[in-house]
Amino acid sequence: MQREDEQQLEIAERQSQLIVPPLNFAMIAPGIYRSGFPNPKSHPFLLQLRLRTIIYVYDGDCQDYHMQFIERNGINHKHFRIAANKEPFEEMDHALVAEILAEVLDTRNHPLLIHCNRGIRRVGCLVGCIRKLQAWAMTAIFDEYQRFSGTKIRISDQEFIEVFKTPVHLDAQHKPQWLAD
Amino acid sequence: MQREDEQQLEIAERQSQLIVPPLNFAMIAPGIYRSGFPNPKSHPFLLQLRLRTIIYVYDGDCQDYHMQFIERNGINHKHFRIAANKEPFEEMDHALVAEILAEVLDTRNHPLLIHCNRGIRRVGCLVGCIRKLQAWAMTAIFDEYQRFSGTKIRISDQEFIEVFKTPVHLDAQHKPQWLAD
Repeated sequence: MQREDEQQLEIAERQSQLIVPPLNFAMIAPGIYRSGFPNPKSHPFLLQLRLRTIIYVYDGDCQDYHMQFIERNGINHKHFRIAANKEPFEEMDHALVAEILAEVLDTRNHPLLIHCNRGIRRVGCLVGCIRKLQAWAMTAIFDEYQRFSGTKIRISDQEFIEVFKTPVHLDAQHKPQWLAD
Repeated sequence: MQREDEQQLEIAERQSQLIVPPLNFAMIAPGIYRSGFPNPKSHPFLLQLRLRTIIYVYDGDCQDYHMQFIERNGINHKHFRIAANKEPFEEMDHALVAEILAEVLDTRNHPLLIHCNRGIRRVGCLVGCIRKLQAWAMTAIFDEYQRFSGTKIRISDQEFIEVFKTPVHLDAQHKPQWLAD
């Protein structure tokens, strides 16, 4: 017999209503998630995350259905129009990346989702920069980048992460506890 | 001039002392991390996570240096001796997997790290089962599994995740808030 304070999780029952996370969804650190562009099927999943903020990094417009979802649910939306790295001459704007990082690392915006379109390149570079701020070894940073890019690694992205050193201005009262001094 | 309540994060300064996460480290959900076997270089990183519990899933002994680290830091250690799936006949023990999941999904153990040796197969299967409890679509579950296995996908692992349906007994007072009813 089941104890009163015990709950039995039945997979068959739970899977009767499937939940679809956005492409390349993952948790980066407490309060911060990453993904590709959410399609309508992933909206119930996003609601479960109780997001306060969604940050979109892409140099094009945001889809209407997604903007409507965001407004309907009172989520704070920030759109940074930033181009991806492109060999041999074009590079993500370092100052703009530092500005985006300051938003991502402000706990007043958490829980937060940062996404681009496929959740690989722009977001991969931003996550790489967060890992540098956490002082991760480059081996681990590149390994995480490649986990999402698979065989589509871009040397220009890895190079960007490696050379990025623009200071990031954080509000000392609202920086994440896990970002050690 | 820098405002008093503002902090400037200088990457060059922060990277003077590199931090090495364990192999295949990632955050699964609030309070739960996954990885391969931590080597001594990754101990400072583990301390930053302020872990309450480390769960080791492997059918062999734990390394002495790691047990010493765990005892020295007052971390709760649980070792489940479980063999990996192996075509065509050997399969992870379903009842034992349900027992491990109940520990992983008990917030009294959080923050928690679950690890095997390479952080790919045993942990990949356990994470897959957690995703089933979250009602994730199999597409997303397999995609996450493959992010860590790369080209070393094991059909036996994916099959295990797909067929697993043993009920998991949780303490209703201490289950994660993100595990929706």
